[in-house]
Amino acid sequence: MTTNKNQGLLWLFREKANFSKIPSIEAFTGYMKSILICANGDGKLAPEERDWVVGQACAFGAPDSLVEELQSYKADEDIEKVIAVTPESDVSRRFLVYDAIKACSADGEYNDPERATVTKMAAKLGISQDMVKQIEEICIEEAKLRQKRLELMYPEGAPL
Amino acid sequence: MTTNKNQGLLWLFREKANFSKIPSIEAFTGYMKSILICANGDGKLAPEERDWVVGQACAFGAPDSLVEELQSYKADEDIEKVIAVTPESDVSRRFLVYDAIKACSADGEYNDPERATVTKMAAKLGISQDMVKQIEEICIEEAKLRQKRLELMYPEGAPL
Repeated sequence: MTTNKNQGLLWLFREKANFSKIPSIEAFTGYMKSILICANGDGKLAPEERDWVVGQACAFGAPDSLVEELQSYKADEDIEKVIAVTPESDVSRRFLVYDAIKACSADGEYNDPERATVTKMAAKLGISQDMVKQIEEICIEEAKLRQKRLELMYPEGAPL
Repeated sequence: MTTNKNQGLLWLFREKANFSKIPSIEAFTGYMKSILICANGDGKLAPEERDWVVGQACAFGAPDSLVEELQSYKADEDIEKVIAVTPESDVSRRFLVYDAIKACSADGEYNDPERATVTKMAAKLGISQDMVKQIEEICIEEAKLRQKRLELMYPEGAPL
């Protein structure tokens, strides 16, 4: 039933971004591509990083055609143009930097070259170095809190 | 494509609980029902609270039959039996308390009567009052961090 699927997607978008409706496919496509472009700023997008972005796209309801596109997307377009495709994606520039930092952390570490790349791409989006640091701080706090949650919930480790 | 759907579900279960595979429908059903039983310990499950649980169930891939069941589930079964349906749900007792606290917060406030209810239900699961407090602390920290994230990402408010 599409209704149940939409209820699930709305739940996810609300938890993540406090949306009260599901974004258009156009906005969602521009947003997801922009994460990949940002994480690929140095031309070195690791498979784990792409997988993390594609996994999120799948979770948030990307149609099969978009999933397929993201799996082989070169991620070398002009980020400023891609994110500006709709007003709601356009105002989500900080959020895409947040997701790009998470993607870059998906292979274990968010290192200095990755930080430099994200900062460079953020500058193209009009986001200052100081703002990138604040966004990064949120990502670090979230990762720490997730770790704390997991250790409290499953002291013996996850059952699956 | 089922593959894409599963990739999305795996992404969600990994982010939330560090699972490396998707739980069985049996485990998932027992877990979701247990959240409702816990939140309904006082017989006063608000519609917003049930909606939050059903929304999460939809997001995490509940089949339509389970969604329908949860929508009208009386949530008055023996929680200890329902959660023990599989080994992996059985070891997820703290996590269900975590989700129950989040469900109880879904109508705006996690108040003292709700706290008493969750603590009483947790005791049935062999979870101490001190542990419930620690779990609650995680929920509070997560809610604060989400708020901080939203304010940083969308200083003018969410676009949708």
